[in-house]
Amino acid sequence: MNEVEQTFKDLMKEIKGYAEALSLIHWDLRTKIPKKAMEQRSDVIGLLSERIHQLQTSDQMKHCIDQLKGKTADPILIKAVEECEDTYNKSSKIPVEEYKAFVTLCSKSETVWQQAREEDDFALLQPYLEEIVDFNKKFATYWGYKEQKYDGLLDQYESGLTTEVLDQVFAKVKKALTELVSQIANSEVEIDVESLLHHFPKQSQEAFSLAILDKMGYDFDAGRLDETIHPFAIGINPNDVRVTTRYDEGDFRMAVFGTIHEGGHALYEQNIDQDLAQTVLARGTSMGIHESQSLFWENFIGRSKGFWQNHFNLFREKAPAAFQSIDFETFYQAINEVKPSFIRIEADELTYSLHIIIRYELEKALIDGDLAVKDLPEAWNDKMEEYLGIRPTSNKQGILQDIHWSAGDFGYFPTYALGYMYAAQLNAKLTEAIDVDGIIQSGDFEPIKAWLTEHVHRHGKMKKPLEIIKDVTGEGLNPDHLIAYLTKKYQEIYQL
Amino acid sequence: MNEVEQTFKDLMKEIKGYAEALSLIHWDLRTKIPKKAMEQRSDVIGLLSERIHQLQTSDQMKHCIDQLKGKTADPILIKAVEECEDTYNKSSKIPVEEYKAFVTLCSKSETVWQQAREEDDFALLQPYLEEIVDFNKKFATYWGYKEQKYDGLLDQYESGLTTEVLDQVFAKVKKALTELVSQIANSEVEIDVESLLHHFPKQSQEAFSLAILDKMGYDFDAGRLDETIHPFAIGINPNDVRVTTRYDEGDFRMAVFGTIHEGGHALYEQNIDQDLAQTVLARGTSMGIHESQSLFWENFIGRSKGFWQNHFNLFREKAPAAFQSIDFETFYQAINEVKPSFIRIEADELTYSLHIIIRYELEKALIDGDLAVKDLPEAWNDKMEEYLGIRPTSNKQGILQDIHWSAGDFGYFPTYALGYMYAAQLNAKLTEAIDVDGIIQSGDFEPIKAWLTEHVHRHGKMKKPLEIIKDVTGEGLNPDHLIAYLTKKYQEIYQL
Repeated sequence: MNEVEQTFKDLMKEIKGYAEALSLIHWDLRTKIPKKAMEQRSDVIGLLSERIHQLQTSDQMKHCIDQLKGKTADPILIKAVEECEDTYNKSSKIPVEEYKAFVTLCSKSETVWQQAREEDDFALLQPYLEEIVDFNKKFATYWGYKEQKYDGLLDQYESGLTTEVLDQVFAKVKKALTELVSQIANSEVEIDVESLLHHFPKQSQEAFSLAILDKMGYDFDAGRLDETIHPFAIGINPNDVRVTTRYDEGDFRMAVFGTIHEGGHALYEQNIDQDLAQTVLARGTSMGIHESQSLFWENFIGRSKGFWQNHFNLFREKAPAAFQSIDFETFYQAINEVKPSFIRIEADELTYSLHIIIRYELEKALIDGDLAVKDLPEAWNDKMEEYLGIRPTSNKQGILQDIHWSAGDFGYFPTYALGYMYAAQLNAKLTEAIDVDGIIQSGDFEPIKAWLTEHVHRHGKMKKPLEIIKDVTGEGLNPDHLIAYLTKKYQEIYQL
Repeated sequence: MNEVEQTFKDLMKEIKGYAEALSLIHWDLRTKIPKKAMEQRSDVIGLLSERIHQLQTSDQMKHCIDQLKGKTADPILIKAVEECEDTYNKSSKIPVEEYKAFVTLCSKSETVWQQAREEDDFALLQPYLEEIVDFNKKFATYWGYKEQKYDGLLDQYESGLTTEVLDQVFAKVKKALTELVSQIANSEVEIDVESLLHHFPKQSQEAFSLAILDKMGYDFDAGRLDETIHPFAIGINPNDVRVTTRYDEGDFRMAVFGTIHEGGHALYEQNIDQDLAQTVLARGTSMGIHESQSLFWENFIGRSKGFWQNHFNLFREKAPAAFQSIDFETFYQAINEVKPSFIRIEADELTYSLHIIIRYELEKALIDGDLAVKDLPEAWNDKMEEYLGIRPTSNKQGILQDIHWSAGDFGYFPTYALGYMYAAQLNAKLTEAIDVDGIIQSGDFEPIKAWLTEHVHRHGKMKKPLEIIKDVTGEGLNPDHLIAYLTKKYQEIYQL
């Protein structure tokens, strides 16, 4: 190996090292950190982010890229150089001081968001969000875009995706979903959700969540489960991928499906090829593909009939006495109830995408300057009423529920809906390739995990999102699979 | 403020930032990290340590020191420049690559120590310890020393202390302690420790530990309590000082006195002046003074009659039924039993210093080349037999019990015994200044915490260890107070 290759590898390792420290800080910030420590920790986040940014945009990095581009035969290095070049181009367009200020702002804003949410007080957060929106507008301009400013942000999370494509696909999904929701509203099937709402002690929920993660093939020697307000999974490195969840003792579904969801993200990060570990490619390839993994496990597996036929005994074992009399059909229907609701992360798989479409429309309007931050709570509530037929009576139920914007992420939300579409496309192919029902019923998920690892996980960032979808399914982004899956499932449940 | 002062402050803030990330990683490494993540995390520790070392020894740092030394009027900056100059001189004597290799080695060695300890296999650890001893020999030479090589290491932990002083003081302490131990062995007082050894569930111990920490004035908004194998306290920053403890369900003393001990360390770090927060002075001034705080709380307060008279109801509230019949005198005597034992952190306050003297003699011999690492287990066991009259039958009970040497720390152990002497000196003064017995009995420890904060905590590294002792007591290091305290206490308990 020549000298430049070694320099480039060392540089990546250094970037990865700081990123690992930063990831641990983020995990701690959302799970363990004492209250008074948050402010100073923000400065540390700013410092480490600035250091990473310095290295990503250093003359040394530029030199490595120039020397290696088109001149190395190592397939991993080829992709790593591409990735670093992309980051270099994007990052070097933002002045260091501006980027540092943004990261520090976001870190403080996350803390303020927690307080604003607790106190149901949007005014606390508003000045932070205004600054964050302004930063994002500037970033979109720095990065450049072809047609719409919002495209510049979208591309950060889902490389190659445009507002034009999204407008079309979302229109199709929106039409199909609103039709289904309306048919369901008129269905005579009564779903007994009350049966699920008995008190379920936190400790038992935790034991149940741990058992399910174990069944999914999550490696506890390379991760752990903790409690948080807003659940997430985080890959600190492929041997340290942590899951968090939230326990609602009045509704165990929050923790169980939340854990399965985050477990899906975690399986992705845990099963990236070890060969990529010391490179910038050891991450999920995009937010959309990442979300396809969490949603695949949460819904296509976790809300399927077969999964619960197999795990109903486990459920009964962990659940208190009040749950022992529920029959299986009631249980299965109850975990698949469709009902417009305020909180995105509690939404059913049918109405979920409508929550995303609302956020997409609002953030596009903020970036385009068609909407002011101060008018956001009202605009949010209006759209909730228009698309879902319900109007939040507090900002806690509305605009303050998600951390994303407070954390600086604009252009991120659409990837959740993309995740649904990708998951449905992968699921269609998976059911052709292997006997999914048989596997689900047997309770040995190894073949599913193996298929996903083979086709998705192991590649990390060696493949672009649409490359993965194309290689597995032979087609591009296609919402028809999701629509077909939801239609079939809910026609059966609601006897439409 | 002039430009150099600002540059210097920014540089300190940067160093503090990386140190904060590093401290969090260390906390995680000993409490939460998944098994498989440890190896890669060692590299991150190496990277961050190297970065701090670079900054501490940078041309920019040298420039700031040269420009500010003797030229700034700000008392904090004066001390901070002194501290940075001392670090610069010490650090710049070790080549960067060598220092990095040492830090990475120690991090790996800590992990190996855990395994070696679990498997009671010294051979696993031996090659790591050999390398660590060699590094320490080199470091002592780099740093320089007047008479004995070991002084070069000792000075890192307790500025100004020498082997010559230590040999004298330890001889005096050793003589007094062995005499007391021998008198106690012949005492007819029977102490009923069995009464304390009922099953005490972990959760109840945790609740009890939390309640005691709270009583001590530990601020839970600026810290937290977690479980670990080898308890420690860590100041990530003054607003994030974490305590860890270990629960033995067969002997609650481990957790309770361990928590009080670490809580004493934590109070020190939590109560350093906020004015020092962004400087290199926001730390305990030395290991010895740090230990004086933990030992003061653990023994002078935590094993006193008054403390337990006040907290006996709290104990009964948290303890299971089997403990409810113990009478107070039995309890008080049992928590003060003197009995030679294998494990340092389980030793009583009387025999404890003998454990330290053993370690001191062994590490001095290793550094002087009078003892080989391979002969360490045997030498350890010989000394245990000679000073304490008991011989370990496994290395887990002997050489493998402490993490310190595996973590690279040589010259550290003596500070534990210094801590005892300092604590006794401070205690003598404190009892003159305020009505300690009255305070202990009332259960409101605020005046004690306030006195310690005023005279010790708030100063951070603004004062050197012996400066603190001198300012409070008017004298230097003096073992007589410790000997007097122990003699009086144990003459009473054992009716000597």
